[in-house]
Amino acid sequence: MSLKRKKISVIGSGFTGATAAFLAAQKELGDVVLVDIPQAENPTKGKALDMWEAAPVQGYDSYVKGTSNYADTADSDVVIITAGVARKPGMSRDDLVQINQGVMKAVSKEIANYSPNATILVLTNPVDAMTYTVYKETGFPKNRVIGQSGVLDTARFCAFVAEELNISVKDITGFVLGGHGDTMVPLTRYSFAGGIPLETLIPADRLEEIVDRTRNGGAEIVNLLGNGSAYYAPSAALIEMAEAIIKDQKRILPSIAYLEGEYGYNDLYLGVPTLLGANGIEKIFELELTDNEKAALDKSAEAVRDVMKVLA
Amino acid sequence: MSLKRKKISVIGSGFTGATAAFLAAQKELGDVVLVDIPQAENPTKGKALDMWEAAPVQGYDSYVKGTSNYADTADSDVVIITAGVARKPGMSRDDLVQINQGVMKAVSKEIANYSPNATILVLTNPVDAMTYTVYKETGFPKNRVIGQSGVLDTARFCAFVAEELNISVKDITGFVLGGHGDTMVPLTRYSFAGGIPLETLIPADRLEEIVDRTRNGGAEIVNLLGNGSAYYAPSAALIEMAEAIIKDQKRILPSIAYLEGEYGYNDLYLGVPTLLGANGIEKIFELELTDNEKAALDKSAEAVRDVMKVLA
Amino acid sequence: MSLKRKKISVIGSGFTGATAAFLAAQKELGDVVLVDIPQAENPTKGKALDMWEAAPVQGYDSYVKGTSNYADTADSDVVIITAGVARKPGMSRDDLVQINQGVMKAVSKEIANYSPNATILVLTNPVDAMTYTVYKETGFPKNRVIGQSGVLDTARFCAFVAEELNISVKDITGFVLGGHGDTMVPLTRYSFAGGIPLETLIPADRLEEIVDRTRNGGAEIVNLLGNGSAYYAPSAALIEMAEAIIKDQKRILPSIAYLEGEYGYNDLYLGVPTLLGANGIEKIFELELTDNEKAALDKSAEAVRDVMKVLA
Amino acid sequence: MSLKRKKISVIGSGFTGATAAFLAAQKELGDVVLVDIPQAENPTKGKALDMWEAAPVQGYDSYVKGTSNYADTADSDVVIITAGVARKPGMSRDDLVQINQGVMKAVSKEIANYSPNATILVLTNPVDAMTYTVYKETGFPKNRVIGQSGVLDTARFCAFVAEELNISVKDITGFVLGGHGDTMVPLTRYSFAGGIPLETLIPADRLEEIVDRTRNGGAEIVNLLGNGSAYYAPSAALIEMAEAIIKDQKRILPSIAYLEGEYGYNDLYLGVPTLLGANGIEKIFELELTDNEKAALDKSAEAVRDVMKVLA
Repeated sequence: MSLKRKKISVIGSGFTGATAAFLAAQKELGDVVLVDIPQAENPTKGKALDMWEAAPVQGYDSYVKGTSNYADTADSDVVIITAGVARKPGMSRDDLVQINQGVMKAVSKEIANYSPNATILVLTNPVDAMTYTVYKETGFPKNRVIGQSGVLDTARFCAFVAEELNISVKDITGFVLGGHGDTMVPLTRYSFAGGIPLETLIPADRLEEIVDRTRNGGAEIVNLLGNGSAYYAPSAALIEMAEAIIKDQKRILPSIAYLEGEYGYNDLYLGVPTLLGANGIEKIFELELTDNEKAALDKSAEAVRDVMKVLA
Repeated sequence: MSLKRKKISVIGSGFTGATAAFLAAQKELGDVVLVDIPQAENPTKGKALDMWEAAPVQGYDSYVKGTSNYADTADSDVVIITAGVARKPGMSRDDLVQINQGVMKAVSKEIANYSPNATILVLTNPVDAMTYTVYKETGFPKNRVIGQSGVLDTARFCAFVAEELNISVKDITGFVLGGHGDTMVPLTRYSFAGGIPLETLIPADRLEEIVDRTRNGGAEIVNLLGNGSAYYAPSAALIEMAEAIIKDQKRILPSIAYLEGEYGYNDLYLGVPTLLGANGIEKIFELELTDNEKAALDKSAEAVRDVMKVLA
Repeated sequence: MSLKRKKISVIGSGFTGATAAFLAAQKELGDVVLVDIPQAENPTKGKALDMWEAAPVQGYDSYVKGTSNYADTADSDVVIITAGVARKPGMSRDDLVQINQGVMKAVSKEIANYSPNATILVLTNPVDAMTYTVYKETGFPKNRVIGQSGVLDTARFCAFVAEELNISVKDITGFVLGGHGDTMVPLTRYSFAGGIPLETLIPADRLEEIVDRTRNGGAEIVNLLGNGSAYYAPSAALIEMAEAIIKDQKRILPSIAYLEGEYGYNDLYLGVPTLLGANGIEKIFELELTDNEKAALDKSAEAVRDVMKVLA
Repeated sequence: MSLKRKKISVIGSGFTGATAAFLAAQKELGDVVLVDIPQAENPTKGKALDMWEAAPVQGYDSYVKGTSNYADTADSDVVIITAGVARKPGMSRDDLVQINQGVMKAVSKEIANYSPNATILVLTNPVDAMTYTVYKETGFPKNRVIGQSGVLDTARFCAFVAEELNISVKDITGFVLGGHGDTMVPLTRYSFAGGIPLETLIPADRLEEIVDRTRNGGAEIVNLLGNGSAYYAPSAALIEMAEAIIKDQKRILPSIAYLEGEYGYNDLYLGVPTLLGANGIEKIFELELTDNEKAALDKSAEAVRDVMKVLA
């Protein structure tokens, strides 16, 4: 029983990592360590210092430290992995997988070494396979290695619905299963505005358009930015999960979880509804699915397995 | 008496402008419009959309819109100007002033046209001269054209002190007069930790080092980042001022204010302690200065006048 | 377009009124006026002063004023009515209705006189009939006279579910129609934990027990306290509604709304799902009900009409 | 290193204790246990339940439990003592001291038994002597037994100044040494608005009136209420201290601390500026005092010793 401050480390100081560090500091989840490779040490220090200089104005006491030395992450309670490369023109999917797998292996070793009791949240793409890699490499129990995709997908869906209906985002709940992106399985029958089924508030074809937009939500931002990908909503999603764990909130949030029989899958990381608390994933909720939903989820699982075949 | 939502427009969608828009949304100060030139329209839309997609997770109802069309800013309550270029290698100071003066003129015309009752906050450098330009070009009353520098300088000073003493940023107050950067006039005798004079907590030479570091706070970040300048703390500073105005908080914050005799200066924008509320700068506080402090402030005013000579 | 602070007046400085004033101040919804009859002026002033003295510690700028003079409420944006007597041993229901109707008439006259543009929230019991009285007496449009019961009933239901399942209150949504208390119509099929139907998480008989406990939630607290009734959750419910209106949040919340044909009722105030924003009730949502639900709602409406027969 | 939720127990479920429990829950400092004697068990349970039913609306996950069984407080991180009687007409000061000393002894035994690692915050009057009693009875190290008075006194002073100058409470800092009430030693030269010395903003005689009003702040509320004493600001003060400890904030706040030579006193609990963090009082700041201030502090210390003579 100690009141020592909590510690969150964010690996990767790109836009998403930096924004995640900032959001964690704002919520005073604990002290924050932003880590990147030695070549990026100075910019990482610069971003961290800039965040710390915002603390007196924003009123948070979380110290933000930039570093390239993993010793600074020692005894983290939560480690967030955003490191890795994005897919660039001309790069094959398999190249991407192999490069980022290498990054995950290196990072996993450092985390296992310095923070053996941490819970890990993975954002790096392809996220299902990368979370699997981190699980294998760290040897951590499955409840403490978790991937993010469903919180973000759901947030996008809810934002689109809020705009469509001109109602508060506070009252919209959505529900997404499966992999990130194309093979995402949105359960619109489990999606509501103030408890009212969306299917009664939005015509079916319009709702389908919103679902499609959600599915392509990442690409929409990539196309607009021209040079880079989304980071505000992804980092907010990561920090919502981190907060649930650090504050033992017992939230029901979609996570990429290691499945051992749930939904009929084994030895696979896939997006499912989970209970997040002090012990990471404390429970996986198994919903009854319609045949269509199950088929879509199977397709999603298949897509994940396809990527995993590339893993070394 | 209307409960219509407030509206904040942020001109310039670079890192500082985008972060300011995000912080305004987080605080639910109102709906937010992020504006940039037509060539940057898509990235501006992309950033705004990404922020809006974070809303369901962060729990804010502020809608964030990206645009290049000033009509979207109509009837803003507060307009924040971050537009302009940064000084690049090989660019003379005079070139910088003239380029950004041109930007201010263009922006001022749009604001005066679409939001004649707005209060304007200026961040663009050299900020004293740019605020003066916006004041002249909009023809707005002096209380509604305000520059930011002292909140940021003070925040940096407080952050350094908090780290030095290992105490909460919540309990440190600092005090800065004059121009931004080199000619900043820190009043350490008005700086406290929990009400205790810093001069009794930190040795004089160490306190002087902290003051020097504050003076060079912007350059420290520029050097670390290698490619760009600070944006977390500057945008947080802007939003603290915007919040004081939009929520009529009657905060005492340092502002770059138009002086008509205060501190012995006329027709000059300079950093002084002000009362910020619904009417923008509602009061300028005139402190008694020591001879040294007055001399430093004179030097600061002189530096501002030097820059203003370049204005067309 | 003015940035003048908003103003909330709370009529009745008992526990619920005082707590509502405090919660409004905490959220900085605006300046707060706590009003009671001249005989209670001093305690009202004492409570308000105590709240104001908490402001520097809690960090809110809302000023709280205690008074017995309605002139102090002038131009309120929202007025909350908690005034009236509670039913005491030996008092008939009809006596209660008539006494509180008298209070509503007196209060309505003052509100209409001093704050003709306010939106009114009524808590005084029997709340459906009292809201009707305020509607008639003020002559305000129906969208600006609103009763509270469903937010509280739903909150109790959600609290019981959160405890039952040991999950976060943040992820539970419930749904209640109809009158307050006995004739409340909970729609368990529209109640979820993290989007998962409660009916799949809690056995039917246990869920029925939770519904029953919700129905008797007010009495449970009355019995425990021995001398008084609930005030934390009721005042929190009022302030959630006030916030939705003052901040134009477009929340979907259950309100006691004036019906003109909705759900088949006319000239009746009854609990239904509504959209709350700057214009008070901006929309009433009509859900399709099962036969059982419709029958229960009819019974609820009948109970309200029974009470209304007592109105002078 | 565990992410288990923190636990705060509040002894005494009167207005101050109940409000403190509510404020702790709102801030999600941890789960909250509200304790009172068996005769008050039901009302205590009622208040706690009412707070828990507010959780879904206010959005906090802290569970609030009412009890008369100290076993429920086991392993608390912070224990707040508000139990005891208030001085009633006809009761001598010595009677008050002896009665409340008895309460402190009983409570201390339970705390030492069930939460041997807790940090204790005492509010019960006369608070300096009661904190001393708890220190002796628990045998806890001095850093973990702390009394509250200066945070409240300072808050009142700041509220009065904010109203006087019509400026934000966020920008006012005050400073109070010594005992609670009559012998309070306000250091107006260490009191500021936005860093500007109050002595330059408020005429000396008016400032003296504000100091006097602060000194009598408790009595002012007692007189207004007619039947009871202040509880909003006192409980807010307690929770600010509890938050500093639980979140290891390293705040500089005035505390009633055990002195061993500081300011020239020994074996005495007296109000002094302290650093509050995970280890309770982590430091006592010794300010240089003027002769007048030292004389006033001596008088204050004398008054505390006078009360302590009554201790059994």
